[in-house]
Amino acid sequence: MTTDLHDLTRKLKRENDSKIVLYVADGLGGLPPKPGEKTELETANTPNLDAAARRGTLGLSTPVVPGITPGSGPGHLGLFGYDPLQYNIGRGVLEALGIDFELGPNDVAVRGNFCTVDAEGNITDRRAGRIASEIGVKLCEKLDKIEIPGVEVFVRPVKEYRLVIVFRGEGLGGEIDDTDPQKTGVPPLAPQARDEASKATAEVISQFMQQAAEILKDDQPANLLTMRGIAKKPDIPTYEEVYGLKAAAIAVYPMYRGLARLVGMNVLDAGATLDDQMDRLEAAWNDYDFFFVHYKYTDSTGEDGNFEAKVARTEAFDAAVPRINALNPEVFVVTGDHSTPSKLRSHSWHPVPVLLAADTCRFDGSEGFGEAQCLAGGLGQFEAKHLMMLALAHAGRLEKYGA
Amino acid sequence: MTTDLHDLTRKLKRENDSKIVLYVADGLGGLPPKPGEKTELETANTPNLDAAARRGTLGLSTPVVPGITPGSGPGHLGLFGYDPLQYNIGRGVLEALGIDFELGPNDVAVRGNFCTVDAEGNITDRRAGRIASEIGVKLCEKLDKIEIPGVEVFVRPVKEYRLVIVFRGEGLGGEIDDTDPQKTGVPPLAPQARDEASKATAEVISQFMQQAAEILKDDQPANLLTMRGIAKKPDIPTYEEVYGLKAAAIAVYPMYRGLARLVGMNVLDAGATLDDQMDRLEAAWNDYDFFFVHYKYTDSTGEDGNFEAKVARTEAFDAAVPRINALNPEVFVVTGDHSTPSKLRSHSWHPVPVLLAADTCRFDGSEGFGEAQCLAGGLGQFEAKHLMMLALAHAGRLEKYGA
Repeated sequence: MTTDLHDLTRKLKRENDSKIVLYVADGLGGLPPKPGEKTELETANTPNLDAAARRGTLGLSTPVVPGITPGSGPGHLGLFGYDPLQYNIGRGVLEALGIDFELGPNDVAVRGNFCTVDAEGNITDRRAGRIASEIGVKLCEKLDKIEIPGVEVFVRPVKEYRLVIVFRGEGLGGEIDDTDPQKTGVPPLAPQARDEASKATAEVISQFMQQAAEILKDDQPANLLTMRGIAKKPDIPTYEEVYGLKAAAIAVYPMYRGLARLVGMNVLDAGATLDDQMDRLEAAWNDYDFFFVHYKYTDSTGEDGNFEAKVARTEAFDAAVPRINALNPEVFVVTGDHSTPSKLRSHSWHPVPVLLAADTCRFDGSEGFGEAQCLAGGLGQFEAKHLMMLALAHAGRLEKYGA
Repeated sequence: MTTDLHDLTRKLKRENDSKIVLYVADGLGGLPPKPGEKTELETANTPNLDAAARRGTLGLSTPVVPGITPGSGPGHLGLFGYDPLQYNIGRGVLEALGIDFELGPNDVAVRGNFCTVDAEGNITDRRAGRIASEIGVKLCEKLDKIEIPGVEVFVRPVKEYRLVIVFRGEGLGGEIDDTDPQKTGVPPLAPQARDEASKATAEVISQFMQQAAEILKDDQPANLLTMRGIAKKPDIPTYEEVYGLKAAAIAVYPMYRGLARLVGMNVLDAGATLDDQMDRLEAAWNDYDFFFVHYKYTDSTGEDGNFEAKVARTEAFDAAVPRINALNPEVFVVTGDHSTPSKLRSHSWHPVPVLLAADTCRFDGSEGFGEAQCLAGGLGQFEAKHLMMLALAHAGRLEKYGA
């Protein structure tokens, strides 16, 4: 017997004046370099998070299911309370979010790769010699002029050989196989629709590719492109609808801004530093119920394999906490969307430290915020998708279930 | 929202050169004789497992769901990563596996019981006076000669009054009710098909029973038989398909060999001792990615209610660990398929100690391998079916989920 958690929250949500802050250090969880040593978070000097841990409750969250390493999309969906196995974000959509492209309900988003083809049309280089980003920008400007009747076409550069294409039009399905054959010596594949509604999209893509071949024919080595992750924005209910929350996101990187927008958060502009983000938080405090504040550098230093830098970034993340405390949110949640142990130089499946501080917490004896303390914490180990309901409960925003 | 975990592993599996060893002590979990005392595993001197615990992560696995005591079939399916509530192994199938009978896709397997019937055909003894095994063997030889057009019939003795019958033929369904009425004073029931495809099977069974009655009529007290657990082999995807693993099983007892074969493991022949099994493991090391090594005696001593013997067998299980360590598997998992506390003299529902050792483990402060340490372990308490995904993750054999 399974339940969509949002069937519960829709029914039980209750409005009040409480504020919830979800303070996310991307890739927060780590690993000790060797058995018996400390993780990055345990090594970092985090007096403010430790104080919050003493008055709150700790736990460990599993982003998807045990053993599964999430990308940023599923990682954040889980944090936002959406089952990451139920809601699937296509790569094209994520790539569009990553360049701050605002997708609408009639948009089909595609991740494109410039490639090189020979005189017979067979791919000789799947990444077009990794052309410089400036070249990619110019090629995208040319492709952006493609016109297809009844459809708006947007072509935007991402980086080097990577680009985003968006087809906007009524009745375009998003179920199309990749045209990237994943090997050289063959031409790009023809677009294949997986359902009836996507046949029109396949036709649009064919027309686009014909024109693109003509436009790019002299642009060696980027004389064609392939497509991957062709998809529409998933149909995700909003924070307002499922939780009754007016929510704001304060995130610097486009992908996280886009993910927040997907669930109906208002994305607020802010400068690039944590101090800028805190300024924005203070300025917006009276206008929203819920704030998602995203900090990227605990993840990027982990991906760099730089233990010390991740420790330092964790300390910077901690140093901003007093400004949140000063606003006195009813519920203060600190966690990550997944672990990024510097030892592994990548996202991982390891459970993620969680701290929830509120006046309604049951004391669990935690002395500070770290993986070992979280393992013994009062929230236990739980799937990330349950975190939002705990936050709502501590905010007094959920009615009793049943009489 | 539920997901078949194998939909995930099929999509995310990645091949590499890593080796995984799943070292199973059947019925590993135990109970202390009295409150405040130690379990069998905690009492045993297990220096090698303790060392593995210090460099690994511990936890407790629930074989099915809390409170459910599994038989060997569901217990092992869970360990192998298959939901034991989704995949049901009929008793006839398990009995056939237990005598090393290789079942094919067209086989219907039946557990038979010799019984005694009176002149009116009513059962007077459901176990035929528990005839000696030698008599059972001879009766099975006679029944094995039964011929039914279009169907191959195999009749094999198990022990005393127990036997296995296999009907092999195209289009035979396996949905037939037991013919054992579970009481005396009535005749065996006629075979009833529960679906259309099984009507032919019911007809085959009726013919078999007619001939059997004639053949056995003078063989008092075993002058007839009843049938239970009539079933086909479940349609289980293989390790190769769902995990991309070339898997080998090194198990002495037929039932565990059969269970491994069900999920597509290659069953390797080995002598009867742990040393023999380790010889086989070493010899096969380069030919497989995954090894299931099964040790029976922690379960059988538990079923005997012999605390000291279970302790001794646990120590023998520990003593073989250095030979596994010497092979340097990337992932070393130690657990049981269920608990068999000697205090209860039976399988039980108690969660089962799990040890996972790999270079990618998060240190959880474990000092040794035992139930209390596992309760505080970093893997927490989880359903057994998730263990394989954790093993794959630590082996680097799963791609990231989502971008």
